[in-house]
Amino acid sequence: MKNKFFFGFIAITTIASAIAHYWIPSIGVKFAMTSLAIIALAALLGKATETVAHYAGDRIGGFLNATFGNAAELIIAIFLIKRGMFDIVKASITGSIIGNLLLVLGLSLLAGGLKYKQQTFNPLLARQNASMMLLGVIALFVPAAFSNGLEVKQIHTFSLIVSASLILAYLLWLVFSMITHKEELENTDDEEDCEQPPSWSMRTAIIIMIVATTLVAVESEWLVQSVEKVAHKLGWSDLFIGAFVIAIVGNAAEHSAAIFMALKNKIGTSVEIAVGSSLQIALFVGPLIVFISYLFGTPMDIVFTTHELVAIGVGTFIAVSISSDGQTNWFEGILLLVVYMILGAGFYFV
Amino acid sequence: MKNKFFFGFIAITTIASAIAHYWIPSIGVKFAMTSLAIIALAALLGKATETVAHYAGDRIGGFLNATFGNAAELIIAIFLIKRGMFDIVKASITGSIIGNLLLVLGLSLLAGGLKYKQQTFNPLLARQNASMMLLGVIALFVPAAFSNGLEVKQIHTFSLIVSASLILAYLLWLVFSMITHKEELENTDDEEDCEQPPSWSMRTAIIIMIVATTLVAVESEWLVQSVEKVAHKLGWSDLFIGAFVIAIVGNAAEHSAAIFMALKNKIGTSVEIAVGSSLQIALFVGPLIVFISYLFGTPMDIVFTTHELVAIGVGTFIAVSISSDGQTNWFEGILLLVVYMILGAGFYFV
Amino acid sequence: MKNKFFFGFIAITTIASAIAHYWIPSIGVKFAMTSLAIIALAALLGKATETVAHYAGDRIGGFLNATFGNAAELIIAIFLIKRGMFDIVKASITGSIIGNLLLVLGLSLLAGGLKYKQQTFNPLLARQNASMMLLGVIALFVPAAFSNGLEVKQIHTFSLIVSASLILAYLLWLVFSMITHKEELENTDDEEDCEQPPSWSMRTAIIIMIVATTLVAVESEWLVQSVEKVAHKLGWSDLFIGAFVIAIVGNAAEHSAAIFMALKNKIGTSVEIAVGSSLQIALFVGPLIVFISYLFGTPMDIVFTTHELVAIGVGTFIAVSISSDGQTNWFEGILLLVVYMILGAGFYFV
Repeated sequence: MKNKFFFGFIAITTIASAIAHYWIPSIGVKFAMTSLAIIALAALLGKATETVAHYAGDRIGGFLNATFGNAAELIIAIFLIKRGMFDIVKASITGSIIGNLLLVLGLSLLAGGLKYKQQTFNPLLARQNASMMLLGVIALFVPAAFSNGLEVKQIHTFSLIVSASLILAYLLWLVFSMITHKEELENTDDEEDCEQPPSWSMRTAIIIMIVATTLVAVESEWLVQSVEKVAHKLGWSDLFIGAFVIAIVGNAAEHSAAIFMALKNKIGTSVEIAVGSSLQIALFVGPLIVFISYLFGTPMDIVFTTHELVAIGVGTFIAVSISSDGQTNWFEGILLLVVYMILGAGFYFV
Repeated sequence: MKNKFFFGFIAITTIASAIAHYWIPSIGVKFAMTSLAIIALAALLGKATETVAHYAGDRIGGFLNATFGNAAELIIAIFLIKRGMFDIVKASITGSIIGNLLLVLGLSLLAGGLKYKQQTFNPLLARQNASMMLLGVIALFVPAAFSNGLEVKQIHTFSLIVSASLILAYLLWLVFSMITHKEELENTDDEEDCEQPPSWSMRTAIIIMIVATTLVAVESEWLVQSVEKVAHKLGWSDLFIGAFVIAIVGNAAEHSAAIFMALKNKIGTSVEIAVGSSLQIALFVGPLIVFISYLFGTPMDIVFTTHELVAIGVGTFIAVSISSDGQTNWFEGILLLVVYMILGAGFYFV
Repeated sequence: MKNKFFFGFIAITTIASAIAHYWIPSIGVKFAMTSLAIIALAALLGKATETVAHYAGDRIGGFLNATFGNAAELIIAIFLIKRGMFDIVKASITGSIIGNLLLVLGLSLLAGGLKYKQQTFNPLLARQNASMMLLGVIALFVPAAFSNGLEVKQIHTFSLIVSASLILAYLLWLVFSMITHKEELENTDDEEDCEQPPSWSMRTAIIIMIVATTLVAVESEWLVQSVEKVAHKLGWSDLFIGAFVIAIVGNAAEHSAAIFMALKNKIGTSVEIAVGSSLQIALFVGPLIVFISYLFGTPMDIVFTTHELVAIGVGTFIAVSISSDGQTNWFEGILLLVVYMILGAGFYFV
């Protein structure tokens, strides 16, 4: 019964947003309608994530949420690659990584920390995540440090080697975290005892997750279009729009689900969504885009700008410093958000 | 009885140093007299800090010591700002941060570690301090990395945003550490049981702390003047004098109190004085100076030189690496002092 | 009986490799023969290390292995210094540091981790090692950051000060780790109970260690000569050959012994060999070479190139991140090897 109303509400908001997008000229109405639809869909997505987490563990739930969320970004990146818009692709990769590490994680820790004095998750997972993120930073930093003075062809070969190394590392990470050391990385909090059984089966939940993610991706795209228009009118730079505005709006799915889980005291799932999503972009989606760019005959290298590297490096260091003990509190959320704000100001002025 | 002699000794040395400062031309006599007065006052200050720590906990004791110590530095900085001497202000901020993190903390760990095999303090506090220091480094690093190519006006707006963010973070840190998570950050060592009750009340101790800090500030200023003359005669650069000579002499209060507490096996208070003082300068005093510079119509930006950033970054990393487990020993003190020595050599030659 | 065959095999392979080196022109045969001899000698060295570790503890065993291994490198460096080949000396120092931290440690963690789900070593040792490595990075980074604009004479004085500081720190580290805090840094795993008693005495084992290390050094030198010829034919750069090819081949002793110990579940000894060897080079052998260069009247400074600093910095950060909890697994080995691969590609193209 409750479900029926819920699905009805989602259907109505989604249809309303489509009508607003295609036939209503007012940016304000478009913005309001798509935002409403995204919030409704995000709630659905959060519910589905929680259900999957119930059956398959927090980590798998978070992993699937992050993966479906990133699938959308991959598709958008492929379209940009085809048109040779490499700078925007790199800016959006940067934006996704720091958006997840600083904004999504920061809001989750803050929201969860205001409700619970201290939240904990598996410290081994925290440390492995830290080392993985460090690998991501190193893999972007080394080509930038070494590319100076190299020929274009050498840079491309180097980019392919680095990309292949990262994809290999990411696949082995899945083997490690899902197969050989699955139990060791399990969440340690067992406060789920008194929970009521979920109303969906695992299968239903995954299907809902896929559908909801797809709809969120479409809605996000619509939202991005209206936001971009406003942003350009305000005279904001492409870099700022790509790395911040689009990243914030476009990651609505991760944002809402991660905060939703933090408020349920499942900070482990929040971390998996936020950090896991960053890792997937840095170590898998990004490198995959490099390879795909070759298939299209428009090769993209893996050399990021200094500003992007600073943002990714700085975001990783503070996130690692905060999360590596497996304990979180509201102030750690504040620290992440302050760093995000400082970086945002930097990108705004550049 | 013992107190009487003590206060009499302090009064005599203080008066003697004033006489030497104003009427005796010999630099040697000035130096000896002010040094003697500072040592006597520092012992008083250490005693007062210990008394406050007895009543209000190690952290409040350390916090008050650091705050009164930094108040003096803030006043000096304001005078320099008025005269537009921004480079010296920045050099002295740098010197204060690394002086506290490397020299004060290093000497404390070494002194305490030679007496006790291992000293411990609250590891949660250690990790929070680490993340806070990292925020300070990031907040100084990002403007420097992004300022290249910006207009002066943009740099100033950016500096104000960063400064406001840091002050906000520091105030929330006080809320976190003094209110919401006070108990979690309390020191875990309870070896204070067999201690005799302090001879002063909390109120008396705080008043003594304020008076002693003020007198130490005045004496330090006198000492700095004579040291500066000698330093200039020796041909030392302004940067070296500002960041090392003045920082060492001018932080006599923090030095002596921190070492005093380490020798009493209260390493938690030493860390609070040393790291807490650094944090206060990086996240509060420094940003406050930026705002104050606007009130005076002589706006100072927050862009530090590469050498200063290297010194602050390097000092923070080694201090974080050493202190983040909440355990200390003599060799960790050596490591901090060696890094201080290397940085000192660097600043000497530049 | 078993020992007899073993020593016989070693004698035969060693003599065969000498014959191949001096009288057989085919590079392939030289390569095969010296490789075979090194493998046989490395097994002997591993056995001797294990025996010393049995009597004197894992750390002394690892320390002696690392020291004898580095003695050979020091001798080679002295010959290069005499001929003023500073660039190659610095490249080989870089190669040794990252070779030990990434390749030797990576292979050890991987090999050990494939056999044992999780291996542990003393976490206090891990953290002290981390701080020491950080000191090494700082000591190389600061001169590079400050040397710009200095006169040659100033750079040399600065290099001597930094070198003296590092040697002092290393000697105090030996005092700390071998005398004042020996027990605290002992390995915690006591799985050695069911071990059979070693067949050699401590004295015999140390003599075997010295002889085997010397022979391995000679064989490595021969191997390096043939590899260099091939490498030059392939058009590889001097930097790549120095920092990677020679480092890999020339550290055969450390490699094999470290992996050998990891497979025996003595990961603490592996870490001591790999990290301890890196530390010794960064904090003792390198600085000693600077001093020795003055005795020869061909002063070498301590300023490394940006690429070398990036490699050492990046290698240290990932190794510290992985090892600082005192727990290791196969995936952490993969992470180290991937970073080594990326750096290798970078040095190859530069």
